[in-house]
Amino acid sequence: MAYELFYWPGIQGRGEFIRLALEEAGADYVDVARSSGKGRGMPAMMKALKSEPLAPFAPPFLRDGDLVLWQVANILMYLGPKLGLAPKQEPLRYVANALQSTITDLVAEVHDTHHPLATTLYYEDQKDAAKTRAADFLRHRLPKFAGYFERTLKQNPAGDKHVVGDSLTYVDLSLFQCIEGLHYAFPRAMKGFEAAYPALGALRKRVRTRPRIAAYLKSERRIPFNESGIFRHYPELDQDAG
Amino acid sequence: MAYELFYWPGIQGRGEFIRLALEEAGADYVDVARSSGKGRGMPAMMKALKSEPLAPFAPPFLRDGDLVLWQVANILMYLGPKLGLAPKQEPLRYVANALQSTITDLVAEVHDTHHPLATTLYYEDQKDAAKTRAADFLRHRLPKFAGYFERTLKQNPAGDKHVVGDSLTYVDLSLFQCIEGLHYAFPRAMKGFEAAYPALGALRKRVRTRPRIAAYLKSERRIPFNESGIFRHYPELDQDAG
Repeated sequence: MAYELFYWPGIQGRGEFIRLALEEAGADYVDVARSSGKGRGMPAMMKALKSEPLAPFAPPFLRDGDLVLWQVANILMYLGPKLGLAPKQEPLRYVANALQSTITDLVAEVHDTHHPLATTLYYEDQKDAAKTRAADFLRHRLPKFAGYFERTLKQNPAGDKHVVGDSLTYVDLSLFQCIEGLHYAFPRAMKGFEAAYPALGALRKRVRTRPRIAAYLKSERRIPFNESGIFRHYPELDQDAG
Repeated sequence: MAYELFYWPGIQGRGEFIRLALEEAGADYVDVARSSGKGRGMPAMMKALKSEPLAPFAPPFLRDGDLVLWQVANILMYLGPKLGLAPKQEPLRYVANALQSTITDLVAEVHDTHHPLATTLYYEDQKDAAKTRAADFLRHRLPKFAGYFERTLKQNPAGDKHVVGDSLTYVDLSLFQCIEGLHYAFPRAMKGFEAAYPALGALRKRVRTRPRIAAYLKSERRIPFNESGIFRHYPELDQDAG
């Protein structure tokens, strides 16, 4: 049976990390809220959000038969081995999950650059706070995350083509997505990124040219980045790398 | 060999979720940065943070032999089955991890009530922003999280004593810790909490009176809540529940 992915239609958002894994694996899946027909579309997602006895806390969530799982890193830890996108050795799967959870933190911090005060307020109503938070992110947090992943990639005992283990995992795909998103959101700050972090730059290229990923990125299934998602381009929040 | 837990000494912080699981299980562990002697203390933690080839991104992290793991939910997913604090059924372990990751989000939001703009700035330098964020948290986010966990607990097919499965798991311990911390940080807002969320209130009492947890809470190993941790009591951020 096809995996059912539930996520807000219209944005890449956190759902994109799951999509990339499903696409790379050529898995049979339905992007429920973006599909139509019986048991499809937004009404189906809103209904699934109220599942009993157990409901997911928030999208994205995945339904695999009777099992409903949420939280990106958790979904990927579950899917990874089934899709051939997890390390073969059991202990390394927890390392992969630690890395993916660190990406989750990075994504949350990117989100908070445009919504530092409240998700219930418009961006326009927290723009000054967003400028402070975005400047701190670009100056302190982004170099910390990027430096960490660059180092981890370069020091991988199995080679610097993959961040963990000796084959492509969902963590590589998620790193690709973050770099793409950061380039979209902060083109000025990201200008020298590939020079400063060459191993990450090479990983980005490798992932982008994988046949299934390349085909996906050209397809209509890939939603363009936009200002409703996580990675938003607000020029006033961008600045040259310090 | 004893588990080695690495976390900042002086605060409960995110390390406390791991400590509670180790304490409840009566596990053999060393709280490295708070211990002295060879391979102990803060220098040992700073050294472990620079492990090669693989370093943890940030404390808390756990060393079990050769394996170094970080991120609270990930550490608990790894430790849970070993400590007898995870659901017995494999699929439910991913549900436990989804719930624990949701707690991770809650904890991050609590942290951001006092540091909405930047962790590199003092609280005093972002107090106005903190007031806005804290008010939004207490009005919108806390009821969303609490309502969700109350419902999940009440609807657990195996009974409302545990949030997942039919026995105590690390998720129950972490929920206890959150409720304790929220009462410390926001006594006014939390005044009616037990009446509004009776299943969570009962869980809090049950966990607190478990023999090993009760002994731990009375011991010197339990660091008191304080204004350097995640749950901080700043009266100006607290307000009556709306």
